[in-house]
Amino acid sequence: MNLSEDRVLADLRKLARFGEVGRGVNRPALSEADIAAREWLCDRMSECGLEAAIDGVGTVYGRAPEAKASILLGSHSDSVPMGGWLDGALGVIFALEVARACRASHPSTAVGVDVVSFSDEEGTFLACMGSRTFCGLISQEQLASARNSSGDRLLERLGALGLAKRERAQFDPARHRAYLEAHIEQGPKLIKAGVDIGIVTDIVGLRRFRVRFQGQADHAGTTPMAMRRDAAAAMFSFAVSVPERLEAAGSADSVWNLGVVSIKPGAANVVASEAELIIEFRDVSGPTLVRMEEALAALIAEHDKSGGVTVAAQPIGAVEPTAMDVRLVERLTAAAAAESASRLHMASGAGHDAMIVGRLAPAAMLFVPSIDGRSHDVAEDTAEEDIRRGLRVYARAVNSLLESLGSDGTGAP
Amino acid sequence: MNLSEDRVLADLRKLARFGEVGRGVNRPALSEADIAAREWLCDRMSECGLEAAIDGVGTVYGRAPEAKASILLGSHSDSVPMGGWLDGALGVIFALEVARACRASHPSTAVGVDVVSFSDEEGTFLACMGSRTFCGLISQEQLASARNSSGDRLLERLGALGLAKRERAQFDPARHRAYLEAHIEQGPKLIKAGVDIGIVTDIVGLRRFRVRFQGQADHAGTTPMAMRRDAAAAMFSFAVSVPERLEAAGSADSVWNLGVVSIKPGAANVVASEAELIIEFRDVSGPTLVRMEEALAALIAEHDKSGGVTVAAQPIGAVEPTAMDVRLVERLTAAAAAESASRLHMASGAGHDAMIVGRLAPAAMLFVPSIDGRSHDVAEDTAEEDIRRGLRVYARAVNSLLESLGSDGTGAP
Repeated sequence: MNLSEDRVLADLRKLARFGEVGRGVNRPALSEADIAAREWLCDRMSECGLEAAIDGVGTVYGRAPEAKASILLGSHSDSVPMGGWLDGALGVIFALEVARACRASHPSTAVGVDVVSFSDEEGTFLACMGSRTFCGLISQEQLASARNSSGDRLLERLGALGLAKRERAQFDPARHRAYLEAHIEQGPKLIKAGVDIGIVTDIVGLRRFRVRFQGQADHAGTTPMAMRRDAAAAMFSFAVSVPERLEAAGSADSVWNLGVVSIKPGAANVVASEAELIIEFRDVSGPTLVRMEEALAALIAEHDKSGGVTVAAQPIGAVEPTAMDVRLVERLTAAAAAESASRLHMASGAGHDAMIVGRLAPAAMLFVPSIDGRSHDVAEDTAEEDIRRGLRVYARAVNSLLESLGSDGTGAP
Repeated sequence: MNLSEDRVLADLRKLARFGEVGRGVNRPALSEADIAAREWLCDRMSECGLEAAIDGVGTVYGRAPEAKASILLGSHSDSVPMGGWLDGALGVIFALEVARACRASHPSTAVGVDVVSFSDEEGTFLACMGSRTFCGLISQEQLASARNSSGDRLLERLGALGLAKRERAQFDPARHRAYLEAHIEQGPKLIKAGVDIGIVTDIVGLRRFRVRFQGQADHAGTTPMAMRRDAAAAMFSFAVSVPERLEAAGSADSVWNLGVVSIKPGAANVVASEAELIIEFRDVSGPTLVRMEEALAALIAEHDKSGGVTVAAQPIGAVEPTAMDVRLVERLTAAAAAESASRLHMASGAGHDAMIVGRLAPAAMLFVPSIDGRSHDVAEDTAEEDIRRGLRVYARAVNSLLESLGSDGTGAP
């Protein structure tokens, strides 16, 4: 396979010009910059002989026209607002380069490489919207009710872009034998450990709850402390107990976050009548997530009605963990070893399109280190040497997978 | 003195029509409704022979024209947004009625009754703006920089209302021998104790601090718990320690509140980089407030840099406690006894214009019970019988004060 690392770096920089903001990009799904980037990607896929189109939800799918079976390679090209240049883009350009190299060496094999850039992985309208649509794991109702944070409807945006009536690319179990996604780590584990490559064994599941505290607004000067029903005080007391309970119920690698807090009416001299928290936690084990849910429910029951404040939780998100395919993990491990790259088997704490496609096909992911562990920020970056090494490991794994599938695609992934 | 309780109730209801919202009023300082109410009040004062005008900041001041000395009576007629119908209005209409009764019985005495409705007690632009201006306790710079929550400048609003160039009524130590203010309690103490009248001995002082927590934003899925600098977690841990520290440093009647909370960036899946709290506490003793300040500073020092999060406090408000005049307190007590009203000596946990005027003249306040202790809400109310009784006690105290000052005003208040 005749890879060009320089061409990959050049293509990543070209892609980063769409929505460029300093070192990063502002390319939320279905924005002008996102669509321009997708048109550019579509042209690059066509250029190397793939049958490429932007589909009915914005996913760019390039199909090896002669192939009866394929390995699906890719990621996403949308970003969070003011995001990094490599998040998603890296996996799409790696996929494009590997497809180009494969087609250049073996233009019309029965087992080919398909390339995809899924739409809206970042959830501007709906998280993993492109991969969910591709896999048939989203309902028309979910699409119809989806809006971005400005209140724009997804279906109206697709209509305005002339996409609404296009076909939606579909996962085909007879064709798509495996999915491989390269991505930046988006965390500090590899960089802190000085390791070259992360090989993802699992993508964590998560639970998200909105916890509401209902007390009573009172004048904070004239109401004696003992007569108050202070929703803010109840929230603080609850919030400090959350970590120890989740830690006790979770695994050593469980993580949690209390990232959204608000109180009402929100005046210095008024006792809070209402308070609200969003709690999320993640783990690679489904049963562990259930234990953590139970621990949270028990803590809420203990705090409910204390100090005259009611406490109630409402589930607002649940994603089950996804295990990566063991054979693909071994293939990536062997490829890293062959490239003399140090590697770490790790869970992905972030969601990815591989979590969706992995429900229908053998899937795996390769991570390259994120400098300072930063992501979802224009400061996100990866050392050039790590990008080059990541490409070599990724391409080697695809090559070995193609060999294993055999010329007729009947082999095991 | 020939009081009409019915006229007071009728006037209170007429005043409540300006900015009427259900049972309450929406009459923020210098709004259309506030100015209309002040014009109506000014007419009522003129009607009974006072020399009345709206001054350069919106205060309505009605002066007994023949008097060489006076007792100043009043309160304020502006409200918080969506506030109660009696907060401030009660004291203004009591003052008007007592002035009317005095003038009817002794039209041109050397010691008279002046009536005032101070502007913007509630702090739409600046708390106690009218009484501070009256007492010369505000600078032109403070007035020039004052804005309401919509960003409108005070001075522009005064200009648009045609008030900016008017004179500002001024406290005159030779004339204003005492200040008496009737008000609703705005808290639950009287109603819970089943007591008719509150006699204010002190108005609490307060301190207000903005406490800032600075950590680092990180992906809440990919960043191990031990590597986080979570500003929200630091805030929760700090906030739960505040009550015990302030309780230990304060008095049995100290109160505190954590009524404003925010975190950034405020996303479920992002570790908080910044968090902010506003803490206020109140007490009748200046030295106690200093001890509470020291306790808060010590707590901040203990938490600073814990978990990689810096904690810093910035003072954003300080009001010193004001003691009411002991002789006036005794006079109100005797008046309540003469009206067979049960009474409670109490501190006011809320600020009032009497806190400002009390720095320059003997001042005191009388409270009537607030139903359910509610205020700053359209639900605020006081039983009619309590309004009638309050008026009788208030008028009796004014009467005894006038007698004590003597026909030439040289007596002690």
